[in-house]
Amino acid sequence: MTRHFSFDLQAVDGNARAGVFSTPHGPILTPTFAPVGTQAAVKGVTPAQLNELNAQILLANTYHLYLRPGSEVIAEMGGLHTFMNWDKPILTDSGGFQVFSLGKINDIDDQGVTFKSHIDGSSHVFTPEKAVKIQEHLGADIIMCFDECPDPYDRSYNESALSRTHAWAKRCQEAHTRKDQALFGIVQGGIFPDLRVHSAQYIAELDFPGNAIGGLSVGEKKSEMLEIIDLVIKHLPENKPRYLMGVGTPLDIVQGVYRGIDLFDCVNPTRLARHKSAFTRYGRINISGKKYEKDPMPLVEDCSCYTCQNFSRSYLRHLVKSNELLAPILLSIHNLHLLINLTSELRSAIMAGTISDYISSYFENAKNNGFSL
Amino acid sequence: MTRHFSFDLQAVDGNARAGVFSTPHGPILTPTFAPVGTQAAVKGVTPAQLNELNAQILLANTYHLYLRPGSEVIAEMGGLHTFMNWDKPILTDSGGFQVFSLGKINDIDDQGVTFKSHIDGSSHVFTPEKAVKIQEHLGADIIMCFDECPDPYDRSYNESALSRTHAWAKRCQEAHTRKDQALFGIVQGGIFPDLRVHSAQYIAELDFPGNAIGGLSVGEKKSEMLEIIDLVIKHLPENKPRYLMGVGTPLDIVQGVYRGIDLFDCVNPTRLARHKSAFTRYGRINISGKKYEKDPMPLVEDCSCYTCQNFSRSYLRHLVKSNELLAPILLSIHNLHLLINLTSELRSAIMAGTISDYISSYFENAKNNGFSL
Repeated sequence: MTRHFSFDLQAVDGNARAGVFSTPHGPILTPTFAPVGTQAAVKGVTPAQLNELNAQILLANTYHLYLRPGSEVIAEMGGLHTFMNWDKPILTDSGGFQVFSLGKINDIDDQGVTFKSHIDGSSHVFTPEKAVKIQEHLGADIIMCFDECPDPYDRSYNESALSRTHAWAKRCQEAHTRKDQALFGIVQGGIFPDLRVHSAQYIAELDFPGNAIGGLSVGEKKSEMLEIIDLVIKHLPENKPRYLMGVGTPLDIVQGVYRGIDLFDCVNPTRLARHKSAFTRYGRINISGKKYEKDPMPLVEDCSCYTCQNFSRSYLRHLVKSNELLAPILLSIHNLHLLINLTSELRSAIMAGTISDYISSYFENAKNNGFSL
Repeated sequence: MTRHFSFDLQAVDGNARAGVFSTPHGPILTPTFAPVGTQAAVKGVTPAQLNELNAQILLANTYHLYLRPGSEVIAEMGGLHTFMNWDKPILTDSGGFQVFSLGKINDIDDQGVTFKSHIDGSSHVFTPEKAVKIQEHLGADIIMCFDECPDPYDRSYNESALSRTHAWAKRCQEAHTRKDQALFGIVQGGIFPDLRVHSAQYIAELDFPGNAIGGLSVGEKKSEMLEIIDLVIKHLPENKPRYLMGVGTPLDIVQGVYRGIDLFDCVNPTRLARHKSAFTRYGRINISGKKYEKDPMPLVEDCSCYTCQNFSRSYLRHLVKSNELLAPILLSIHNLHLLINLTSELRSAIMAGTISDYISSYFENAKNNGFSL
């Protein structure tokens, strides 16, 4: 790792870890959850509010920002931190996942991917070198390798995609020049244990300053996801941060931290908020229900977020039913708080060496509340 | 005025006044601008942000809240202040304007108005007594008489509507029982000077704790609006607050304060924000213009609002072009700040006895910036 980055484990409890990942824009206390600001903005939440939520790191997306406003615009405006007014760490996803999920793929070969923009249909090419170049323009603290994201159940596609993802990881590493950015590798392999193990070993060997597990929470079974995490974690170095991409929910985060994950990101908190849903400690509720019409309680009884401290379910239901702009804002604040606060509680338990108790009691309560694990 | 309310003039400079209107939820330093939270929410702005903006009073709407969620729901939840988490003064409009502009009128007679809901087409009747009753349920500090709002240029309609509005004002006064609410009268009369003078005299005589000028900024010429304000003000008591309803823009507010108005409200700041527009000191700009693509300046150079202190025009344009939820939020914060801050500057000038200098220099600068007065 360069002098700009270091990862120090402060406590290990079972497989769970509490650490500090130091970046040019300050430390990230792990485990933690990164709110997603796909287009250089967390939907409906200001940076001031994100600071109040104790968000330590935000995620933005290479694919979206390359298309609009263009990475050279952001570079000219002083880089992503200045542009979006966030002076703490930022991570940019490489665009791999988005090219495959949002763009219209015209062609994939070993060189790269030709795709059509989801905005205006214009044609573009992403190569590993270009994805790194764009991310260097954007200037995030953590940047990601460009990877291919196949259907997790398609064995032969996973085999060919994995060879490519591995070759691209090497090319990303060779193309990357900015010393004030940490390039993370990504483990792929679908739901296939042997491919996942091979990928974890290969990526670990490339000695990136951090490693991610990609291609999960994309439609596979919960049990398959947990099995893959258990398998992959064993082969990822202990002294580097481990990032589980695109996950998720309160239960997934508890499961992930328990297994040794340090960093999570997901659009869930803000996306669910725009669909009238609020996280509870174990699941979620849709606040538009008639039963909340005169409910004076907060979304979650003991929640310390701005929304729960100040507004009733009755009011939030009214906002949702009235299509008020304030509805997704207040629900996003709550949902983000719940996940960030959960990682912070897990961190405290790890530091105190009580993670087993914490997890048992969490699972016990989840079961009592009707959630299966 | 009851013991719950008092209006103290602290300084008078020409026709302009600086005062303190005391209410059960605290004092309002006048002149000031009230952000509008039609459905018990200022669109896209949290109460915490409104406090940061130094908003002293919010407006909500009887028509909307009666239809959804229903005034009895709000009453059961502890009243409007608790429901929307705003412990400073609130004013509710009577629904008169909305019944005429949003509802489908089925019938108007001396008794009241039968209309169809703009939400589900259901049929409802508003009478002066009912409008007061609903506002008593909602529990705002300042409530408004139920009035008829005709086309400002229709002479004969204005004559008949005015008799009704005057009779309804008396009936509102008789129906009103809550001593912790101040019921304000409303002067109507379209663009007709004689009707306006008659109305001002009539309403003044009823001795409400405050008086409003309604039916302006609804399509009449700017010069007509100013002429009416000048005329009406002469007949409104000096020792009561004067409220210019539904106005407006930076220039209108300067003109109004100069003429002796104490309170303004308007949906403009948040509505314009949702249409990509930002107030400048004299007019406004549409931030979606290509010329802002790489503009590192804030919306308004010397503006102290959160948006201008932290974000460039380039970033705001990106948000607008990307349909990000953060766009109307940041533009609303700026627009509200600009109007509230303007009233605060005007207040300081009145207190200092320099309102003439302030106004001359404001108009001079406005002219130099290409705005006609």
